[in-house]
Amino acid sequence: MAYRAPLDDYRQLLKHVVGYEAVADTQKYAEAGFETAEAILSGAAKVAQEMVAPLQRIGDLDPARLENGVVRTPKGFAEGYHAIAEGGWVAISAPEQYGGMDLPITLTTIVNEMISGACVSLNLTTLMSQGQIEALEHHASDAIKEMYIPKLISGEWCGTMNLTEPQAGSDVGALTTKAEENGDGTYAITGQKIYISGGDNDFASNICHLVLARLPGAPSGTKGISLFLVPKLIPDDNGNPAQPNSLKVVSLEHKLGLHGSATCVMQYDGAKGWLIGEEGGGMAAMFTMMNNARLGVGVQGLGVAEGAYQHALAYAMDRKQGRSETGTIIGHADVRRMLAGMKADIFVARSIALANAVAIDMAKATGSADWKARAALLTPITKAFGTDTGVDVASAGVQVHGGMGFIEETGAAQFLRDVRVTPIYEGTNGIQAMDLVGRKLMDGGEAAFALVDEIEGFAESVRGKAPDLGEPVWQACETLRETLETLLSMDMTDRFAGAVPFLRGFARVLGGYYHLRAALAEPDSATERLARFYITRILPEHMGLFAHAKAGSETLMALSPDDLAA
Amino acid sequence: MAYRAPLDDYRQLLKHVVGYEAVADTQKYAEAGFETAEAILSGAAKVAQEMVAPLQRIGDLDPARLENGVVRTPKGFAEGYHAIAEGGWVAISAPEQYGGMDLPITLTTIVNEMISGACVSLNLTTLMSQGQIEALEHHASDAIKEMYIPKLISGEWCGTMNLTEPQAGSDVGALTTKAEENGDGTYAITGQKIYISGGDNDFASNICHLVLARLPGAPSGTKGISLFLVPKLIPDDNGNPAQPNSLKVVSLEHKLGLHGSATCVMQYDGAKGWLIGEEGGGMAAMFTMMNNARLGVGVQGLGVAEGAYQHALAYAMDRKQGRSETGTIIGHADVRRMLAGMKADIFVARSIALANAVAIDMAKATGSADWKARAALLTPITKAFGTDTGVDVASAGVQVHGGMGFIEETGAAQFLRDVRVTPIYEGTNGIQAMDLVGRKLMDGGEAAFALVDEIEGFAESVRGKAPDLGEPVWQACETLRETLETLLSMDMTDRFAGAVPFLRGFARVLGGYYHLRAALAEPDSATERLARFYITRILPEHMGLFAHAKAGSETLMALSPDDLAA
Repeated sequence: MAYRAPLDDYRQLLKHVVGYEAVADTQKYAEAGFETAEAILSGAAKVAQEMVAPLQRIGDLDPARLENGVVRTPKGFAEGYHAIAEGGWVAISAPEQYGGMDLPITLTTIVNEMISGACVSLNLTTLMSQGQIEALEHHASDAIKEMYIPKLISGEWCGTMNLTEPQAGSDVGALTTKAEENGDGTYAITGQKIYISGGDNDFASNICHLVLARLPGAPSGTKGISLFLVPKLIPDDNGNPAQPNSLKVVSLEHKLGLHGSATCVMQYDGAKGWLIGEEGGGMAAMFTMMNNARLGVGVQGLGVAEGAYQHALAYAMDRKQGRSETGTIIGHADVRRMLAGMKADIFVARSIALANAVAIDMAKATGSADWKARAALLTPITKAFGTDTGVDVASAGVQVHGGMGFIEETGAAQFLRDVRVTPIYEGTNGIQAMDLVGRKLMDGGEAAFALVDEIEGFAESVRGKAPDLGEPVWQACETLRETLETLLSMDMTDRFAGAVPFLRGFARVLGGYYHLRAALAEPDSATERLARFYITRILPEHMGLFAHAKAGSETLMALSPDDLAA
Repeated sequence: MAYRAPLDDYRQLLKHVVGYEAVADTQKYAEAGFETAEAILSGAAKVAQEMVAPLQRIGDLDPARLENGVVRTPKGFAEGYHAIAEGGWVAISAPEQYGGMDLPITLTTIVNEMISGACVSLNLTTLMSQGQIEALEHHASDAIKEMYIPKLISGEWCGTMNLTEPQAGSDVGALTTKAEENGDGTYAITGQKIYISGGDNDFASNICHLVLARLPGAPSGTKGISLFLVPKLIPDDNGNPAQPNSLKVVSLEHKLGLHGSATCVMQYDGAKGWLIGEEGGGMAAMFTMMNNARLGVGVQGLGVAEGAYQHALAYAMDRKQGRSETGTIIGHADVRRMLAGMKADIFVARSIALANAVAIDMAKATGSADWKARAALLTPITKAFGTDTGVDVASAGVQVHGGMGFIEETGAAQFLRDVRVTPIYEGTNGIQAMDLVGRKLMDGGEAAFALVDEIEGFAESVRGKAPDLGEPVWQACETLRETLETLLSMDMTDRFAGAVPFLRGFARVLGGYYHLRAALAEPDSATERLARFYITRILPEHMGLFAHAKAGSETLMALSPDDLAA
């Protein structure tokens, strides 16, 4: 599948929309200015376009499979992953002392988007290793860090995350996998885990599993959970994979999409593991990496959206049908509307994700609690809006293709099949929305109002100059403020009932803000025209969404399960 | 897959929402009163539940395939189709003189929904034969009617529709299949047709193709198109399939869904055909059946939505996860919100489809031009909103299942894969919306305003009694009226740019109206609670949609193809 990394779009966002300059101005990231960023991103773009993009269709047509207990990855996935790793793209934000480049998460985020756009199945491998590196960096002993992180970065080894069990999905606290002390400082892990992306592969010389399990006598719920590192092959003292551990892949799932990625059921039978972090600190350690993993999954949605958009655009510019000024279907108003809507929403999802990444970098570089709160606030929005946009854009891509969209050979349907899981995994989008209106408003709304103030201030300042753009954004921002105030006056049941529409409405207003910033930076350009399309035609959706968000729980919970079954 | 026909819902809608009584009060349908309807529908429900529903997964897992030029249908499809035909369910609205029951289209519509909900792949066969029967009834000679229609009704023979060619999809007028006179009153048809549902099967003793083709010297575009009946086996004088015709299935498409249905590439090499209707009257004849086919496809979307909803509801009532009042995930506000939204929109799509069918029946029974215009107005809304609801509800069904939704064994994903083509075929939903704001407003908006007046009058009359429900519907209706007036003042380019959001906004307001009618007929019931959920939380979506619809084309068409590629 042809994929072109949208380098101009990244440049535009970094410069004019998400304030990357502030990151480059910090001492920590002083060497990651615009020029470095350009060099990094064009290098990654080359790998994504040339090495990774051809794997997307291959992974779908020649799925990962289990042969004699070993996962065989699709043809070319090994070379593709090695190309990513050799360029250093597995984890450019990892610490230099372990072989990383200590670059901003903002750049990692863009690299992740490119790899997702090129082949999202393969991106899962990168993302799992990134998450593991981060968890180890913050919670593991120095010995483990030194042994594992460099090999995860070099791509020699790959990482996985093992949370879910059949009875413990969104409710992680219900897990029953056991960990018992071996007496030598290690632990014996026993239990079954499901939905393990990349639970095995045939190109890494070791697979390192991070497994949530429960020690004897641990309290029930999430407080009794600890985190263990459980390698497929137990390394010897020199770090060479040696003795096979007591774990295996039981089976692979037969999925709607992501066929290139092996989703494994894992069985641990007293497998040897090392405690990471404190006893009972498993959830805390998981949360360290979960925030970045949520950003990463949001960006998977975004990347697939970009791929699907490019694919649909190429079709629309080529397909002759009916009478139109251009001779092709892009001349038809409704096809144009679909493509413009796709592009405008990709802009929004990308702006939110990069603003989120910038906030993480600023928090890391300055230690500022405000930036930390900003990052925490944006994370559920990045995840949910990015992945919803992935599904919506991929579905619109099918529609642009007409009848051809339903034929698998066209490739349009694969984007939809692949991306459909992203609103589910790494915390469903419903859980993201509950996180936003619950935990993320526990500061009394301080972080949220700070962002609303920022939007309002900007819209206010341009209302005179560009009323047709500034005024609607200002109005939408006021409605967001009111809605936020209403939510803060509600109890959790009422908030939760409108959480999903609130998150989406918030994203709509953020979209207005970022489009507005871009338009003012580049007047009379395609950017300004896209902003006008969005602000005039799409932004008004916030009205219905906020009406729903403010409705409380009464009219929802009045519908009993019996009512729904009637 | 378990499927339960929602007989109570049909009863409710017929009695309180869509005014079926008027149909039963006509002389033509005097024998199709509520009791007859109940008997008919429960008979069809039994077949759908017992014979058809088990085929849904089979069709997906054991797809239709081409073997030595013959299509092999999935195991059980033959028996399923025969069970449908034996009950008379292929075409209960067909004329009695040919073996039909001359029952209202309203009842056909419900039967079609049940079969679609049970197994949409198999419903395609029924739907194609229904369309063919209708085309023949209105346009064929008596001899052809007598020979073909009884066999199509009995299920001995099956019908297909052949419109599309590789270069002629939405632009039917671009087709190049040729028809030449044989000199004996028959024609030789030559050309290739694609996307032919049920182009062959192994359970009918003949397949009857309706083929659009062009006579020598015919004008270009749609005016030069004629319709031909081209049987797979040419019947002898007694109507027994005898000589093989010069046509074949070249290949089957590999599709996202509907694997149970063979989508064929058909090749006609001088195949013998009979002209149906006038020379150059092909499009007119197609339009006769296309309106009902569009209603039928809208109802496919609706049927799949009902199936997906039942499947998700069962999962949500069974799946234990987290703490909630019920102990299962249906206790969680966001899961409840998804299910309530699914159910509320199914109600809307079903009400629109049945109101549409009632209008067709009333037009047929009374000859009233107003009813005819009402039916024509509602058809694109039924098709587009029904199929969009199919996709949205199926996608929400996947989401309710969490990680299990992505695993094919669960069956949730199949609903999404199957239904994804329905917003595309039988006129894309973009084309439906253009039809609504174009052709269907050519009466100066008379039919549309008549419906708006009806809604307004009803809402007005209940504002005092039930202000929390009546007032928002009245408000939404006023916004619809304003938007309609704005559209009527615009040229087609401006209308087309907002056609899709306008259609959806119109459906939202209709939804408010039908929910309101139901709620007032059954106060203090699950029905009223569902109406309150919809009117309070979902109806407000119309605001953003109408803002988009009124925006004209400027902010859309200003975005050039180059802008979109930038």
